[in-house]
Amino acid sequence: MPKISERAIEMPSSPIRKLVPLANAAKERGIKVYHLNIGQPDLASPGKGLEALKNIDRRVLEYSPSQGFKSYREKLVKYYESYNIHLSADDIIITTGGSEAVLFAFLSCLNPGDEIIIPEPSYANYIAFAISAGAKIRSIATTIEEGFSLPKVEKFEELINERTRAIMICNPNNPTGYLYTRREMNQIRDLVKKYDLYLFSDEVYREFIYTGSPYISACHLEGIEDNVVLIDSVSKRYSECGIRIGALITKNTEIRKAVMKFCQARLSPPLIGQIVAEASMEEPEDYSREVYDEYVERRKCLIDGLNRIPGCYSPIPMGAFYTVAKLPVDDAEKFCAWCLTDFNYEGETLMMAPAAGFYTTPGAGKNQVRIAYVLKKSDLERALFVLKKALEAYPGRVMD
Amino acid sequence: MPKISERAIEMPSSPIRKLVPLANAAKERGIKVYHLNIGQPDLASPGKGLEALKNIDRRVLEYSPSQGFKSYREKLVKYYESYNIHLSADDIIITTGGSEAVLFAFLSCLNPGDEIIIPEPSYANYIAFAISAGAKIRSIATTIEEGFSLPKVEKFEELINERTRAIMICNPNNPTGYLYTRREMNQIRDLVKKYDLYLFSDEVYREFIYTGSPYISACHLEGIEDNVVLIDSVSKRYSECGIRIGALITKNTEIRKAVMKFCQARLSPPLIGQIVAEASMEEPEDYSREVYDEYVERRKCLIDGLNRIPGCYSPIPMGAFYTVAKLPVDDAEKFCAWCLTDFNYEGETLMMAPAAGFYTTPGAGKNQVRIAYVLKKSDLERALFVLKKALEAYPGRVMD
Repeated sequence: MPKISERAIEMPSSPIRKLVPLANAAKERGIKVYHLNIGQPDLASPGKGLEALKNIDRRVLEYSPSQGFKSYREKLVKYYESYNIHLSADDIIITTGGSEAVLFAFLSCLNPGDEIIIPEPSYANYIAFAISAGAKIRSIATTIEEGFSLPKVEKFEELINERTRAIMICNPNNPTGYLYTRREMNQIRDLVKKYDLYLFSDEVYREFIYTGSPYISACHLEGIEDNVVLIDSVSKRYSECGIRIGALITKNTEIRKAVMKFCQARLSPPLIGQIVAEASMEEPEDYSREVYDEYVERRKCLIDGLNRIPGCYSPIPMGAFYTVAKLPVDDAEKFCAWCLTDFNYEGETLMMAPAAGFYTTPGAGKNQVRIAYVLKKSDLERALFVLKKALEAYPGRVMD
Repeated sequence: MPKISERAIEMPSSPIRKLVPLANAAKERGIKVYHLNIGQPDLASPGKGLEALKNIDRRVLEYSPSQGFKSYREKLVKYYESYNIHLSADDIIITTGGSEAVLFAFLSCLNPGDEIIIPEPSYANYIAFAISAGAKIRSIATTIEEGFSLPKVEKFEELINERTRAIMICNPNNPTGYLYTRREMNQIRDLVKKYDLYLFSDEVYREFIYTGSPYISACHLEGIEDNVVLIDSVSKRYSECGIRIGALITKNTEIRKAVMKFCQARLSPPLIGQIVAEASMEEPEDYSREVYDEYVERRKCLIDGLNRIPGCYSPIPMGAFYTVAKLPVDDAEKFCAWCLTDFNYEGETLMMAPAAGFYTTPGAGKNQVRIAYVLKKSDLERALFVLKKALEAYPGRVMD
């Protein structure tokens, strides 16, 4: 039997999805599982999108253009304009989710052995896409104690060498909920400029900023327009994770030409997803406001609740809908698995994502979990109660 | 400005899609373009699929499982059973089109520098996916004169070395329409066994075999069950190219585990596409029969018509809905571009895929084109007439 590839061996299992078999087994035993592990909002998708779906009257469900429909890209131009990001439709390439945008950005810009600097904890699948492209992630630590703020310039410069090709950020951040300040973004801009790096910026959570702080996009940074690749997706802003519609945006025509070759090879982004996403943009503003207000509530509920559980600590996330929290346990991965295999409280348990999978530094985040606040408040409250009970019962409990 | 990656430079532009800008420009000049370049059937998608689309009453368009819905995979088990391919639902992983299945197969099984033997001409995007994975394609020539039949074992063995890891076939073949015989498939099986290679087999055109010859799947070959990875897609059989639903199938649990890591990283195949594909399986048999009969007609119309044009030659394709034909021109790529930029007959022209892009051997297929017979008969007839007129007018005409 021939061997699988080295990259396949190196590929981590998704910390978000790896415990799914245990959750499924728990459900088969009749246990209710609160899913705090995954950024799958329970909020309705926009009515205009759902309506468009019902009204598709095509006879043939055919390929769409490799770069996505022009009408959709033109609407996106206006959308970004509202965030003071000035684009033309040609700057936008529609991808199969934000995931494909990251993969194609890496494949187009990075050679095997090239290094990307990413503040950790970071979205776990960046690691997977880097491995797919043969690139190497150099993590720069951010800590729960400092609220996951960006380390000083010197820390970045310590990591920069001749193989360094890019910095990647997620802003607002998944998994920490951190929002980079103007000062931090300028610091990144200066580094990108000084060392002529790519800046990959995943900004899929821009709708979800709760502190009144300004949203500084990588596209707002002057003088590095040709270095910036923006990663986007409608999954979160429209609660449409399943339609797999994202975008890769750059003013750099060389990158766009390169990315288009990968896009042509996979032929077409999803046809129906594009129709739904385009229609969702017509949704009245109430939708965004209600969704936003709902997350504000849930965030308060989760963070207050977590910080009231003895031994737990979560900073207050400024954006997105996650937090990385410290738990009073020996090993959060063991604890998360145990919650699914050995524990239930009145027939209920919860699933969280062990945070270690969001770090590349061995041992980092060992007693942390990522929690998504994508469930309704009553479910979140109940899940917090179940978490408290689980921590009381867990044999590996460790109090500071 | 940082440089794009070497693989992006190496990536070929799709021979199927690279002339699209020229076609668009022709259309903007008011010229009607017959699209013979792309395997996008004009036939209706199954009514059951279209109906399912209208009846989606989900509130949230959420992620589906990374390996695809179980209900859909279970239905696929029965589908394959009807082709005497015996699987369990666990053997099947749903992918974002057949494209993703090829990419994930390569990423999971091949290391950078590993070699794959592929009979050429071959589906052009295999080259793109091989480059994405850092693997190298070693082409083994098949010729129009021999009707694109498989070369002798010795020809394969000449290419096999310590870096050879796989053979890839497309059966029935895109672009040639060739169908491998039992003898040829057994020859491949013996090679795979002898050298312990992977066999990647793209069989998305199994519904379209016109000669009464038996369909021999890679999954029918005994003794190499752990070496076979089947690539599939509903794009062609249901005329649903735009829903982006394919499958990667293997009995090899190691490969499946590896592929699942890539699947988890991209989170989910398209939700709506799966719903449509699953429903399409309920379509009455009439659908398949009518589609089949239609292609039989079109094939006859195209091949007869081509072979009647002075200087043109096409073998008779046994399956799929393409043929590779020889044209009396100096350079088919130039000719195809010229048809879009400099020619029209009564306001009409045609777009074909230059066959050179389906070969990796430099200079091979220079006077050949791939033609898809996916248009209705009257359009095909007209396109053939326009082709005849174009060949008469083309300055680079070369008669044997």
